[in-house]
Amino acid sequence: MNRQWLYAKQPVGKIGKDTFQWHEGPIPAPRDGEVLVQTRLLSLDPANRAWMMGKTYRDALEPGQVMSGFAIGEVVDSKSPELAKGDIVEGDWGWQDYAALPARRLTKRTTNATLELLIGPLSVTGLTAYFGLLEVGQPKPGDTVLVSAAAGAVGSMVGQIAKLTGCRVIGTAGGADKCAWLTRELGFDAAVDYKAGGVRRAISQAAPDGIDVYFDNTGGPVLDAALTLMNLRGRIVCCGNVSQYDVDKPAPGPMGVPGLVVVKRLRLEGFIVTDFSDRRAEAETRLARWIADGQIKAELDIFDGLERAPEALIGLFEGNNRGKRAVRV
Amino acid sequence: MNRQWLYAKQPVGKIGKDTFQWHEGPIPAPRDGEVLVQTRLLSLDPANRAWMMGKTYRDALEPGQVMSGFAIGEVVDSKSPELAKGDIVEGDWGWQDYAALPARRLTKRTTNATLELLIGPLSVTGLTAYFGLLEVGQPKPGDTVLVSAAAGAVGSMVGQIAKLTGCRVIGTAGGADKCAWLTRELGFDAAVDYKAGGVRRAISQAAPDGIDVYFDNTGGPVLDAALTLMNLRGRIVCCGNVSQYDVDKPAPGPMGVPGLVVVKRLRLEGFIVTDFSDRRAEAETRLARWIADGQIKAELDIFDGLERAPEALIGLFEGNNRGKRAVRV
Repeated sequence: MNRQWLYAKQPVGKIGKDTFQWHEGPIPAPRDGEVLVQTRLLSLDPANRAWMMGKTYRDALEPGQVMSGFAIGEVVDSKSPELAKGDIVEGDWGWQDYAALPARRLTKRTTNATLELLIGPLSVTGLTAYFGLLEVGQPKPGDTVLVSAAAGAVGSMVGQIAKLTGCRVIGTAGGADKCAWLTRELGFDAAVDYKAGGVRRAISQAAPDGIDVYFDNTGGPVLDAALTLMNLRGRIVCCGNVSQYDVDKPAPGPMGVPGLVVVKRLRLEGFIVTDFSDRRAEAETRLARWIADGQIKAELDIFDGLERAPEALIGLFEGNNRGKRAVRV
Repeated sequence: MNRQWLYAKQPVGKIGKDTFQWHEGPIPAPRDGEVLVQTRLLSLDPANRAWMMGKTYRDALEPGQVMSGFAIGEVVDSKSPELAKGDIVEGDWGWQDYAALPARRLTKRTTNATLELLIGPLSVTGLTAYFGLLEVGQPKPGDTVLVSAAAGAVGSMVGQIAKLTGCRVIGTAGGADKCAWLTRELGFDAAVDYKAGGVRRAISQAAPDGIDVYFDNTGGPVLDAALTLMNLRGRIVCCGNVSQYDVDKPAPGPMGVPGLVVVKRLRLEGFIVTDFSDRRAEAETRLARWIADGQIKAELDIFDGLERAPEALIGLFEGNNRGKRAVRV
C-alpha cells in the first residue's frame, strides 16, 4: 500500500490539518526509464507553504496533487540503467511512501553520511546557507553578520559558517530558549528574541558597529530593523520571507526600500540554491568536513511517521523547531 | 554684494517659498589656500529636497545655512596655487553669487564644452546615468530597460544610453506631452504616463517580454509595478526615491520586497555617483562624444536669475521640468 498526503485546498490565513488529506492507494509500478523509490526521510521547509500561495520559482501546488516536498529515499525497483536497487537518492516526490519516477529526476547520493545529515545539512539546507552567505553575502573577517530565523535549519548553519569566516554573528529567534541555544551551543555572539519586542533596539545594542551582511530568512520587522542598521555597502541576502508565508494579509513592504538602499549603497539580492548546482560538490565537501570536525553542529528535529507530516509543517510556522525538521517515514 | 538663499526651515509636507529666505551680504574675501568663485549656473536636483529630511550620504541641512547645491562657476580671485583667475570650476557651494572656499573642494573643468553642458549632462547628472545604468544595471543588448522619471535630467540620459546599448527602452513620465517627447525626440520605444492611472498594466503592455533592468528614480507605484514585471535575475538600480521626497507621510514600502526578490533572484542595488569618481574621465569622454555626435540629446531647462531658484526647485516636484534643470546666476 502507498500512503500519501494530498494537498487538499489552498489555506486562507494559517495552514491547518484540513489543508491536507490522507489517501491510500496501490504502490505504483515503474515504467521504462523509471525507478520505484521508497521514502526514508521527508524534508519540511518553509518554502512548502510558499508553494501554496501561487507561482514562485515553481508552479503553484494544485489541490488534489500529492503534497510536494524534498525527500531522501532508497531505490527498491529500477527500470533505468542509471540507478540500481539499493541506491540512496534525493528528489522532490512529496509526502508519500513510494513514488515511481524517471531516474533523471533523482540525484544519487554517494557520500558515507547518515540519512539524517543527507536530508538537510548536507543537501538543500546546508547548500542554501553556504552559497547564500558566502557567495551572495560576501562576508569578510571582522564583518558583523545578522541572520533571522537563526534557530531554523538554514539560519543555524548560516550563523556557524559566518563564525568560521571570522565574523561577529547575531541571530534573531523566537523565545529565550532558542536564543540561549544560539549563544551557548552554536557560538553566536548575540541572540535577539524577536517575540520580546523592541527588536530594532535589541539588534542595535548587539551590533554597535552596524551590520555588514544580513541574511534574511523572514522579511517583516527584522528586515525593517536591519535596513536602518546596515553599514555603507552592506549586503542583504534575500533567502526567505517566512514571516509572510502563513498569514491572511501580507504586511506592507519595508520602509527602507528604496530610500536607505540608495543612501547606504546597499545591495539586496535573491537567490535559489539551484543557481549554484554546478558547485555543489565543493560545498558538500566543506560542509561534511566542518560537521565531522564538530565545527558546525547540525541539529536535527525529526518527527516519526508519515502521518505526522502536517503537524510537523504547521509547527514550523509556530516556530517550534530547532534546526532541521524532517519526518521519518 | 553677495546675494544668497538661506535654508530657512525644515518643510512639513511639500516645500514652499517659505522653506527659503533671501539674504544679502558682503562678498567674502578668500584666505590663504582659498579662491573666490562667482556662480554661473546652479544645478537643481531632487536630492536637494532629500537633504532636508535628515542625514543621507551627507549631513542634513541646518536651518540658517546657505542652501546647498551643486554649481558651476568662475574663479575671480585666487589665493591658491592650484587654481587661477578665470578657471571654470564645479563644486557644492550652494545658492549664492559668490563663495570663498578651499581650492581642494573644487574641481577644475578643462573640457571645451559649454557651461550649460557642464552643469549636468557632462557632470553629476550624466555620470549618474552612465555609471548607474552601465555598471550597476549591467544591461545587455536585447534587454528591456525601464526607467522612471524618464523626462528628468538623469532619466532622459539613462534611456538614451540604454538605446545606444541595444536595449528596448520604456520610460515613465507625468503627462502626455512628456511621454510624446520621450518617444518622438529621444527615441524611447514606449512611454507610460504614470498620472493616467493603470501604470502596472500600461508598463506590462509596453514590456511584453518583461523587464531586465529597472532604473529607479522614483520608488513608489512604479517600483511596485516593476517588481511584479521583472524577469528572472533582473537588476533594479536604486538611484532615487523622488516620489517620497516631497510628502508629509511616506508611503509603505514595496510589497514585492523581499518575496519577489527571492523568487526571481532579483538584485536591488543603490549607488552614489561619487562611488565611481576614479573612472570619471572615461565616462565624460564617452558622454561628450555621444552629445557632440547627436546620439544623445542633452535637454536643458534653464531659469534665469538666482531669485528664481526656489521656484525652480519647487517645480521639480510638480514635475514641470524636461531634462536638466538649472538656474543661471
